[in-house]
Amino acid sequence: MSPAAESAQLRAAAPEADGAAATAPSPGSAESPVPATARRARAAAVELAPLPRTPRDTALLAIADALEARVDEIIAANAEDVARAREAGTSDAIVDRLTLTPDRVAAIASDVRDVAALPDPVGEVVRGSTLPNGLDLRQVRVPLGVVGIIYEARPNVTVDAAALCLKSGNAVLLRGSSSAHRSNTALVAVVRDAVAGVGLPADAVQLVPGESRDSVHELMRARGLVDVLIPRGGAALIRTVVENSTVPVIETGVGNCHIYVDERADLDRAVDIVVTAKAQRPSVCNSVETVLVHRGIADVFLPKLLAALTEAGVTVHGDSTWQQAGAAAGVSVAGATDEDWATEYLGLHLAAAVVPDLDAAVAHIRRWSSGHTEAILTADTAAARRFVSLVDSAAVMVNASTRFTDGGQFGFGAEIGISTQKLHARGPMGLPELTSTKYVVTGDGHTRG
Amino acid sequence: MSPAAESAQLRAAAPEADGAAATAPSPGSAESPVPATARRARAAAVELAPLPRTPRDTALLAIADALEARVDEIIAANAEDVARAREAGTSDAIVDRLTLTPDRVAAIASDVRDVAALPDPVGEVVRGSTLPNGLDLRQVRVPLGVVGIIYEARPNVTVDAAALCLKSGNAVLLRGSSSAHRSNTALVAVVRDAVAGVGLPADAVQLVPGESRDSVHELMRARGLVDVLIPRGGAALIRTVVENSTVPVIETGVGNCHIYVDERADLDRAVDIVVTAKAQRPSVCNSVETVLVHRGIADVFLPKLLAALTEAGVTVHGDSTWQQAGAAAGVSVAGATDEDWATEYLGLHLAAAVVPDLDAAVAHIRRWSSGHTEAILTADTAAARRFVSLVDSAAVMVNASTRFTDGGQFGFGAEIGISTQKLHARGPMGLPELTSTKYVVTGDGHTRG
Repeated sequence: MSPAAESAQLRAAAPEADGAAATAPSPGSAESPVPATARRARAAAVELAPLPRTPRDTALLAIADALEARVDEIIAANAEDVARAREAGTSDAIVDRLTLTPDRVAAIASDVRDVAALPDPVGEVVRGSTLPNGLDLRQVRVPLGVVGIIYEARPNVTVDAAALCLKSGNAVLLRGSSSAHRSNTALVAVVRDAVAGVGLPADAVQLVPGESRDSVHELMRARGLVDVLIPRGGAALIRTVVENSTVPVIETGVGNCHIYVDERADLDRAVDIVVTAKAQRPSVCNSVETVLVHRGIADVFLPKLLAALTEAGVTVHGDSTWQQAGAAAGVSVAGATDEDWATEYLGLHLAAAVVPDLDAAVAHIRRWSSGHTEAILTADTAAARRFVSLVDSAAVMVNASTRFTDGGQFGFGAEIGISTQKLHARGPMGLPELTSTKYVVTGDGHTRG
Repeated sequence: MSPAAESAQLRAAAPEADGAAATAPSPGSAESPVPATARRARAAAVELAPLPRTPRDTALLAIADALEARVDEIIAANAEDVARAREAGTSDAIVDRLTLTPDRVAAIASDVRDVAALPDPVGEVVRGSTLPNGLDLRQVRVPLGVVGIIYEARPNVTVDAAALCLKSGNAVLLRGSSSAHRSNTALVAVVRDAVAGVGLPADAVQLVPGESRDSVHELMRARGLVDVLIPRGGAALIRTVVENSTVPVIETGVGNCHIYVDERADLDRAVDIVVTAKAQRPSVCNSVETVLVHRGIADVFLPKLLAALTEAGVTVHGDSTWQQAGAAAGVSVAGATDEDWATEYLGLHLAAAVVPDLDAAVAHIRRWSSGHTEAILTADTAAARRFVSLVDSAAVMVNASTRFTDGGQFGFGAEIGISTQKLHARGPMGLPELTSTKYVVTGDGHTRG
């Protein structure tokens, strides 16, 4: 399958937010249940916010137990989604992402227990001092309130997102893909029962009702009821949400990542880093999409890298120097266009260019990167410092693969997404990124004047 | 003047963003210079971002010197704005906010020198560790990029905002009120000359061209060029920006602040706190707008507070208990309506209610507060803890005036605004709130797989 076709199919698995959601809701949508759902979420958030850690962790452990106890019901619902997806001619890769098995449900339950074991972000004192007038100032982490997640077909996200939001004291509104609707409905029923069973409000976890685009539109306009929207999906979904949401949005996940191989890189290690960053798991956002090579090493390095990429099944889309190197090596290198520089392939394709120097690599990255992760491979400390200073992305790697940008790898224990924007959170978002803060100021009757 | 009329006049001094800006730009606006201005700002931001502290501070000191050296030119331009404002029948209070004198210009220059002396937020390592695989992880503060400020008539904000943005490594786009256009043009010319004089890009500080609403609209749609918009003004301006901006917005400044006087408050101190929080500087966002009194102390406390408020020239808009207390004391208390609970008077008016208990006070605050600052006055530690836990505002005061919510009071040295939203920044915003972060990860050729 061509990379464009692969991308299109991945996007088809995303919720129905692109395009039509940009228009006003249809006349009938005033009666939609979305605002009512958001209001229930807000009421639940008010109950959750003052709770200490123990009841929240108790709910998470109850959810894990319930997922295991009710695995048959979950898998039966999932089987219906899978059957429909197969009938619709969905690709094997997408069907695989949609499919739940007893082992996968057990893994989801285990992840929930891991979230329960993480440190509590709520109540952490971020900053504190005694002011000159004797007032005690404390900046304390508090839940955001109501978090809305708009996401793709994978049903494990439903439980992950609910667990992370509950752990951080937030209510969550989940809007998954209609292709996973039965699975998500079953999972949320199990989660809500478990939450209610330990005395917490079931409405802390809700599916957004309706499978149409109108419900996404209404979620985006629920400012005052929803505190943040996190779209997890393709670039088109994210653009639609950014353009149309009055609720604050955190952009996540689009990773057009670059590796720049400097003149003074260790070339054998560079081959290893580029090939694994592309081929080890090409469908994820932190895999590399473009390699930029200093022209001083092109003669030696391009043949080495081309051979290894070919062996790994990677198709290279290169500039003229790369095409010449391909011709010399007997390997077909496609001609790269602006579309290649802009594309997150999410597959075994790699754009490739030769650059005159580090600053040209930085200029290319500045123009085409999605601001996720870029890497420099070099033994030259000055080059490394300059690259780190000039590249404006969520993560900058020096002599390491782009694949390390990940909440788990960074030691956060869990991740709700990888932010590619600069406000509030940038890079992998763990539990603290699902909180806000408030200032608590204590005095003895202090007045100003 | 009635509070409504006062509010209307304050809003009239705000930029022309409300209402019409919500519609699409007029056909001719495609040729507007706003995107070109934003592009120049972005180019300047790219130059600023890697600079260390010294050149940025040098620019600030040069700005301070230039303001003093060119004071006559600044005051001449300001005199034109003041004359126009007087012709238009603007209130004395607004004219006073608009007016620059040699002393006021000297104070602005002094503030710029104070900003230069503050610690550098850029480059601070927020979080750092060595990962189990040996990778060094550092989360480092970096500038946001391009900051847009939409603000009211006060020309001092022009220089303050420019200084804070330069100090934090950002380029700034300034969109002030047309009533201060000549003053702002003169100030920005002085600032730009000073910045260019020390070799930094003058386009780091620019006025947004055009005095029409279209230019505000274009600024709001300049996503990708502008990293954040901070509207500083009335509620209508802020709502317009939030509804129409695709650039991320930080809401600031609307302060419908409450003081709850608990059953176990020290009543004499409570009188002092409420009266000064209202009357000491009623036009600012952290002044109190509503007092809520526990019914257990109403008989004793209402007459005391009414007498002191009357002496301070404050008109009370109260519920039936307050009206009865007023009648008994021979003081006229207006009947409070929902509009009073919702209003940020910004003048010598105070809404007042008696509540059955702390939870009723919290419920009132939850319904009507703008999320800026609320205070509890009590000797009861359990009541204080419950109030702090349940109230969801940027700042919660215990036995202290709402007036302390302020970057200067909190020891931040400077303030770009007070955020009343939960994402990115909440409460007084100092220099760190004008930054983002990036992760820098350093290895020895690390790969995953």
